[in-house]
Amino acid sequence: MDGFDEVPVAGNGLLDRRLFLRGGLAGGATLLSASASGVEREAWSRAPGGPLGEAGEPSPHEAHVMRTGIRSQPGTTGVGSSRTPLEHLDGIITPSRLHFERHHSGIPAIDPGKHRLVIHGLVERPLSFSLDTLARYPAVSRINFLECSGNSGGSLRPEPIQARCSQIHGLVAASEWGGIPLSVLLDEAGVKPEAKWIVADGADSALMSRSVPLEKAMDDALVALYQNGERLRPSNGYPMRLFLPGWEGNMSVKWLRAIKVTDQPAMSRDETSKYSDLQKDGTAKLFTFPMGVKSLITNPSFGHKLGPRGIYQVSGIAWSGAGKIVRVDVSADGGQTWAEAALDEHVLPKCLTRFRTAWRWDGSPSVIMSRAIDEQGNVQPTRAAIVAERAAGSFYHYNGIQAWQVGEDGEVRNVHV
Amino acid sequence: MDGFDEVPVAGNGLLDRRLFLRGGLAGGATLLSASASGVEREAWSRAPGGPLGEAGEPSPHEAHVMRTGIRSQPGTTGVGSSRTPLEHLDGIITPSRLHFERHHSGIPAIDPGKHRLVIHGLVERPLSFSLDTLARYPAVSRINFLECSGNSGGSLRPEPIQARCSQIHGLVAASEWGGIPLSVLLDEAGVKPEAKWIVADGADSALMSRSVPLEKAMDDALVALYQNGERLRPSNGYPMRLFLPGWEGNMSVKWLRAIKVTDQPAMSRDETSKYSDLQKDGTAKLFTFPMGVKSLITNPSFGHKLGPRGIYQVSGIAWSGAGKIVRVDVSADGGQTWAEAALDEHVLPKCLTRFRTAWRWDGSPSVIMSRAIDEQGNVQPTRAAIVAERAAGSFYHYNGIQAWQVGEDGEVRNVHV
Repeated sequence: MDGFDEVPVAGNGLLDRRLFLRGGLAGGATLLSASASGVEREAWSRAPGGPLGEAGEPSPHEAHVMRTGIRSQPGTTGVGSSRTPLEHLDGIITPSRLHFERHHSGIPAIDPGKHRLVIHGLVERPLSFSLDTLARYPAVSRINFLECSGNSGGSLRPEPIQARCSQIHGLVAASEWGGIPLSVLLDEAGVKPEAKWIVADGADSALMSRSVPLEKAMDDALVALYQNGERLRPSNGYPMRLFLPGWEGNMSVKWLRAIKVTDQPAMSRDETSKYSDLQKDGTAKLFTFPMGVKSLITNPSFGHKLGPRGIYQVSGIAWSGAGKIVRVDVSADGGQTWAEAALDEHVLPKCLTRFRTAWRWDGSPSVIMSRAIDEQGNVQPTRAAIVAERAAGSFYHYNGIQAWQVGEDGEVRNVHV
Repeated sequence: MDGFDEVPVAGNGLLDRRLFLRGGLAGGATLLSASASGVEREAWSRAPGGPLGEAGEPSPHEAHVMRTGIRSQPGTTGVGSSRTPLEHLDGIITPSRLHFERHHSGIPAIDPGKHRLVIHGLVERPLSFSLDTLARYPAVSRINFLECSGNSGGSLRPEPIQARCSQIHGLVAASEWGGIPLSVLLDEAGVKPEAKWIVADGADSALMSRSVPLEKAMDDALVALYQNGERLRPSNGYPMRLFLPGWEGNMSVKWLRAIKVTDQPAMSRDETSKYSDLQKDGTAKLFTFPMGVKSLITNPSFGHKLGPRGIYQVSGIAWSGAGKIVRVDVSADGGQTWAEAALDEHVLPKCLTRFRTAWRWDGSPSVIMSRAIDEQGNVQPTRAAIVAERAAGSFYHYNGIQAWQVGEDGEVRNVHV
């Protein structure tokens, strides 16, 4: 009943992406009799439905779609992380409700009327901004990913973690971020010629503090006030956060309270002992700012179970801190052969890009993987290439290729290849 | 303290949009002493904050940002509409929670495991699809607006309604919509040569039924399963709805249960007695499908009160069912002179586009308005032009220019110009 002649484009059942887009797959629909005139109306079609409301909540049948992997340091409730449930999502936008968290001393309960952003240090005019003041400045909005630099770090362990995709890779999300370009506010304060860095402080009691090169601050950095159209939620920095498109998440300081313009980085704890990468030769890489090119099959992934043999959609996300994704390849034979996946319509810079391909699973054990390439020509590395560089215990900035093994029973497991 | 020489580009204080983008506005920031080293830490910075959580909810300080204008027919709770709170939002994405509703018999509580989509009528193979089946078909996602054709209809009343922007114009929103192209499913069923229309039925007890030309069904129509990355919420059609980019919202049938392929439209109640436009000459226009080019200043708008004289950001949304917005003009003198507004980075087809401009308000009574132009050259009409065509009581497909009057006291009111 297939609508087209299948054209394999790589080993073990990968099908041509153009045919995939054109459609005509036999996905297991049920054939009805020729005289079918629709289905019986279910009970919910026979009586008035539920009321209009101030807010539209998810269906109770989707109550399992929540942040995953919530972990806090012993004795605390807010020092740790929760993760975006990637395996339940589709498209490129992450609902704000499900956007991952990474906090260092919990979520401060900020009164927006009292909160101020101060710009000081090497400026002509130290300034203080209230939310009302900021509302008068020119704003912009754009859709970008945000990824914690500790995301996927568990993939560096010798044995593959048998856990859901989100529990390994869920410290990434994409949102529309809206706010005032930081350059506008820095111009207003008047940056002195000797300035080279800014140091951003958060209003959490962890005193989160990160240094950002002035060049980035004057480029596409935002003082973000809105996420996905509404005000930031407290777990993402209400009432304002720094947002640095494409750069490691920790630098996009939440609950932003002060920006000091300086001539050197602060060398704070979170840019020296943390968020740095120990190399095999004993040195540590500091200041790895843009997140590397990366991709990930989210469906199917660990915890999914394929049904009967046949055609399946393989879908995932790709992103790069360097700009747009130009290509994602998919393999169904553990990396021996690759085929180009289809990309959804919106391929935006420094944003999640959704890729998809069609795969005829013949029921044999198969290893599926994806590999992204960005507009600067960066190619997502293998896990082995990263392991070869890093010292034991290195953890941050992992962007290696993820492999999932589909067993004969249809169960999906995590494997290192 | 202005960072640039202001260049007026139209009457009554409209400023050059490039300067607006370059920044340097004096927005009322507070000057600190030269030795300022940041602000005192507030109480919330001195103790551990709140816990990590499965879902990130909005700040209690934002509890007022909810759908507005909830109205149901007498004796019912689910026959009516609620509206997107446009005046509280920024950017282009609408949070799913706040997306407007328009229901004809409430929200059915559908069990997704039992729900089926049937394709029948003039097809080779009548088919029935479960959610599991649909998951195997090639999906796509894209960001589009959805507008009820009754949106803004109140603007045709002789007297301007004194109500919030959302209460007049809030039956519009934009989301990322993800799902299976309807063309894929129609191809699978095999459309017969004599077919010209489809008729889509909803599973609500209102028996919502709309006819769609086959050409649109085979073009960009979706069977939508996801909204903003997660499953549709019940108030937007869970578990599936038809989605027709750019076309009047009522046709994007929620809780989609059946598609019948036909050779003529059904002439159902909601495409004849409703959603049609009575003209001055006594005839009625049927089948006005794409929504017209339109824009709207959301901030400032009714209910806002400007503070001191000075520079303000003027911001709003523009959209067109015909494609991309290419230009939005803004006037601050009631339409005598116009200046081009800046558009946010993402200008997507059949999507909300955010525009902004800078305005120096001199404290005098002023009428502000916006006018959009789309890529097909369509220009948003004046209210007077629409009134001249329509019979009394005509209500749907209103896309006239909205004018807001800023009084000497800073209060914003609705005016017809």
